[in-house]
Amino acid sequence: MKIGIDAMGGDNAPSSVIEGVAIYLAQNSQDNVVLFGNKSVIEKECVDRIKDLSRVEIVDCKEKIEFDDEPVKAIRQKKDSSIVVGLQYLKEKQIDAFVSAGSTGALMAGGLLIVGRIKGIDRPALTTKLPYKSGQYLLIDVGSNTDCRPINILQFAQMATVYVSKVLGKNNPTVGLLNIGTEETKGNELSKQSYEILKNAKNINFVGNVEARDLPFSPPDIVVCDGFVGNIVLKLTEGFGLLFFDILKDIAKLSLKAKIGGLLLKPYLKNLKGKYDYKEVGGAPLLGIDGIIIKCHGSSDGQAIFNGINQAKAFYENNVLELLKEEITAESEV
Amino acid sequence: MKIGIDAMGGDNAPSSVIEGVAIYLAQNSQDNVVLFGNKSVIEKECVDRIKDLSRVEIVDCKEKIEFDDEPVKAIRQKKDSSIVVGLQYLKEKQIDAFVSAGSTGALMAGGLLIVGRIKGIDRPALTTKLPYKSGQYLLIDVGSNTDCRPINILQFAQMATVYVSKVLGKNNPTVGLLNIGTEETKGNELSKQSYEILKNAKNINFVGNVEARDLPFSPPDIVVCDGFVGNIVLKLTEGFGLLFFDILKDIAKLSLKAKIGGLLLKPYLKNLKGKYDYKEVGGAPLLGIDGIIIKCHGSSDGQAIFNGINQAKAFYENNVLELLKEEITAESEV
Repeated sequence: MKIGIDAMGGDNAPSSVIEGVAIYLAQNSQDNVVLFGNKSVIEKECVDRIKDLSRVEIVDCKEKIEFDDEPVKAIRQKKDSSIVVGLQYLKEKQIDAFVSAGSTGALMAGGLLIVGRIKGIDRPALTTKLPYKSGQYLLIDVGSNTDCRPINILQFAQMATVYVSKVLGKNNPTVGLLNIGTEETKGNELSKQSYEILKNAKNINFVGNVEARDLPFSPPDIVVCDGFVGNIVLKLTEGFGLLFFDILKDIAKLSLKAKIGGLLLKPYLKNLKGKYDYKEVGGAPLLGIDGIIIKCHGSSDGQAIFNGINQAKAFYENNVLELLKEEITAESEV
Repeated sequence: MKIGIDAMGGDNAPSSVIEGVAIYLAQNSQDNVVLFGNKSVIEKECVDRIKDLSRVEIVDCKEKIEFDDEPVKAIRQKKDSSIVVGLQYLKEKQIDAFVSAGSTGALMAGGLLIVGRIKGIDRPALTTKLPYKSGQYLLIDVGSNTDCRPINILQFAQMATVYVSKVLGKNNPTVGLLNIGTEETKGNELSKQSYEILKNAKNINFVGNVEARDLPFSPPDIVVCDGFVGNIVLKLTEGFGLLFFDILKDIAKLSLKAKIGGLLLKPYLKNLKGKYDYKEVGGAPLLGIDGIIIKCHGSSDGQAIFNGINQAKAFYENNVLELLKEEITAESEV
C-alpha cells in the first residue's frame, strides 16, 4: 500500500514525522510512502534516517496550515499546503490513506471539502482509544463536532461499531452514551433525545448511559458523546495521566524513605506510564470521510507517528471504508 | 445560628447525617440544628451520639424524596418530605441554612419553587471545589443546569467570584471558561458566545479559555461551564482520584519488592488521598437561591456532612447572600 503523510504537521515536524516514517518503512518492506511538505527540508531529514529512499516520494508543498488558522479559510486559501495537497492525492486515490499530526479543524474541513463524506453520513467524527484500569475503550467524537444533533450521535455509534469490530477485533462491542446519570431521563436535551434514538437503533449493542466516574474503571467498549464533551474527557484523561506520575515523582523527593519506595515501584509504574501516554495510543481515525484519514496528536514524537501509520494500514487492510459504506447504506434503507 | 439538616438525604442516611451533626454540635457550642425526617428513627440515632439534645429540634416528615424521583413532580407531590419541609422552613427564615445529601435535582427544583431566586439571577448553579496538584479550584456549574445560555455562564462567574472572595478568602479570583482550545474562536456555540460576554463583563477577573488538560495542574481560581460538562468533569476527577490509589494498591500486590515500595510511600500518599477524596471537599452551595442551601455528596459519611454544615456556617457568617444580592443588583443597574 501507499500511505501519504503530512511531513509538516505537529509541534515536532518534520523531524518526528520522518522518524516515525523511518521506523515504519524498516518494519514494512512492501509499503511505500508519499511525504507532503517542504521538499528540501524533508530530504535532509530523510537522508540519515531512511535506508531505501526509492520507497519514499516527496511532493513539494510551499505552504503550511498553522494550528491557529481558521480551518475552512485555510483549506480554501492555502492550496499548496501539505494538508490540502495530501487530501487531494487521497481524493484522487493516488494514496491509500493520509496521516497528519496537523490541525484537527483543518483536517476535518479538508476531509469534508476535498475528499467528501460517505453517502448517508451527516457529520464525520474523530475517534480515539482511551485507557481505563484494565484496557482501552473507544471515545467518539473527540473534537470534530462541537455542536451535535441526535442523528450525529447515532451515526458515531454505528461507525465506531464497525471500526471496533473490524479493526480492533472486538465483536458486537457495547455502546454507552456519556451522560450525567444512568437513568434514561437524565442529561441535557441532546443526551435525552440521543438516548431515545440509540435505544431503538439496529446494528449497535446499546447498553444505556455511562457516567464519567465509571470511565476509568468499567466503560463500555464504545462511549459516544458530542465533540465538545469528548474533547474535554480526552484532555482531562491526558492531564490526570501526567498528574499521576508527576505526583509520585514529587513524593520521591520528600525523603530518602520515599525515594527508596519510589525506586522499588518504578519497574511496575513504567508499564503503566505507557498505557496512559497519548504517544502509545497512536492516531485517531476521522470516521465518515470517504477516504482513510488518521489524525495524530499535535505533540507526536516518532513513535506516535509510527503508531498512527500502523493504524492507517490496519484500517486499509481490513477494508473498513467499504464496510462503513455498506453499514450506513443498509441502515438508511431500513 | 440555626442550621436545618435533611436527616433522610443520602445513601447512608440518617446514620451518617446524625454522625456529622454530632461532630458539628460538639465543636460549635453556640449553634442549634433542626433535623427534618422520620422522627422516631432520628431520635434513636441521636440518643447515643449527641450529648445535649436540647440543641436539636426534630421536625417529623413522613415522606422521602428518592434519587430517581422526577424532581419537580417530587417537590409538588411529596409535601411532607424532608426536603420540601426543610426548604419551607428556610423560606420562612425559621432556619438560617439548609444542608442535604439528597437528590440534587429535587434541591434545585425545591430551591426555585419554594425558596425562590435572588432577583436578577436567571439560573442558580451548584458549585464545588475540586483538587489540582497544588490546591483547589472552584468549578461552577457542576450539574444543576444541563442546557445553558451565555447569560447563565456570566452569572455563574459573577456569583462564584463573590463566593470565592468572601467565603474562601481569595481576593479578585481569576475566572476561566472551560473550552476545547485556548483561542477565542474555539469551542461550541455556547462557549464562543460566552467568551464574548465574559470578556466584556465587569466585576470578574476573566483570564480566557482553559483547557481540560490544564485543570489538574494550573487551573484559574474559578472555572465556569454548563452543568452537563461540569458534572462530567466533577465525576471524571472523582473517578481518577479513586483509580490512582486503586492502581497503587494493585501494584503493591505484585511482589514483595513492590509491597515494600508501597509501604514506604504510604504515609505520603495518605495526605494525598484526603485531597482527592470527595468527602473532604464538603458540600456544594447552590448559588443564586435566596437562601443558603448546601448540597452534600450522595454517598456522604459523617465527616462529609460535618464539612457541609461548616460550609453553610461560613456562608452565613460571611453574609454571602446579601453580598450576592448587592453584586447582582449593581450589575443589572449598569
